Amino acid sequence: MSLQDELNAIPGVSAERDAATRQFVFNHTMLRVKDIARSLDFYTRVLGFTLVRRRDFADAKFSLYFLVLVDDPAQIPAEEPARGQWLLGQRGVLELTHNHGSEDDAGFAYHDGNSEPRGFGHICVSVPDVEAACARFEQLGVAFQKRLTDGRMKDIAFIKDPDGYWVEILQPTARV
Amino acid sequence: MSLQDELNAIPGVSAERDAATRQFVFNHTMLRVKDIARSLDFYTRVLGFTLVRRRDFADAKFSLYFLVLVDDPAQIPAEEPARGQWLLGQRGVLELTHNHGSEDDAGFAYHDGNSEPRGFGHICVSVPDVEAACARFEQLGVAFQKRLTDGRMKDIAFIKDPDGYWVEILQPTARV
Repeated sequence: MSLQDELNAIPGVSAERDAATRQFVFNHTMLRVKDIARSLDFYTRVLGFTLVRRRDFADAKFSLYFLVLVDDPAQIPAEEPARGQWLLGQRGVLELTHNHGSEDDAGFAYHDGNSEPRGFGHICVSVPDVEAACARFEQLGVAFQKRLTDGRMKDIAFIKDPDGYWVEILQPTARV
Repeated sequence: MSLQDELNAIPGVSAERDAATRQFVFNHTMLRVKDIARSLDFYTRVLGFTLVRRRDFADAKFSLYFLVLVDDPAQIPAEEPARGQWLLGQRGVLELTHNHGSEDDAGFAYHDGNSEPRGFGHICVSVPDVEAACARFEQLGVAFQKRLTDGRMKDIAFIKDPDGYWVEILQPTARV
């Protein structure tokens, strides 16, 4: 029995893919952020994302920001509507929602999902060299939830974005 | 000024990508789920994901499930460790965390992030034909948060996974 056959035998798993799901793409994950400038700085400068699109909804007082982490940003179509269609066909897009003015509310904070009530856990960025990546995060003053040296899993770290959302950092050879 | 130049001028955006972030990949998003069999059924049968890996942590009483939504599952390496390395280099992986026994606790529920305290918002699956996809979801008895006909955005729907997490459904030509 192959590994895939074993996985397909787990209760709930549908081994035969419905043809109706062809070309379905897990496109994005949306997180609300308090201070969009801090979040854009974190995701572009610290993690290397490219901001591909902003949508402003002035009446409803929020804006959406779509970011991708691609090796060659030159592949992103320069103009709409090709750019938007490209974006919605990609995997691994990060959407940040900014409700205008939340950054000026000193007592306001979003919930990271890892204390009660729990739900969402984290996002993960894989890196070619987890030791080098974490050393750089330290240099940049990034907050850590778990350093490589903490706990039992020595090849996984968790950093925190400006809202406290956890970002797992590992390299593809990690034993997860 | 190009569109990208305009986006790069938004406060916080780092226009020059740090070379240290090369080969960084936005690999996965993790959600906790109450009843793993129901979630695996939803993500594999309804949305077309393939289960690529399960990791069991018997002592700590939880398991991790990694799923991908790819057009050709034959591209997934059949055996470890190639399979795991492939998985951690992919964009758009969904990780589900199952704490053993939560499915037997009638009063237990995870928090979807869209009521207080808010934070995480949703994941999104783009589809080639949003009308056809939503008609199929109706046939399958999937719960909707927002049908295409609800609200002002007529080309976007939100369905709910078994834990109530919102899954946005749209096609790449949507005006988002």
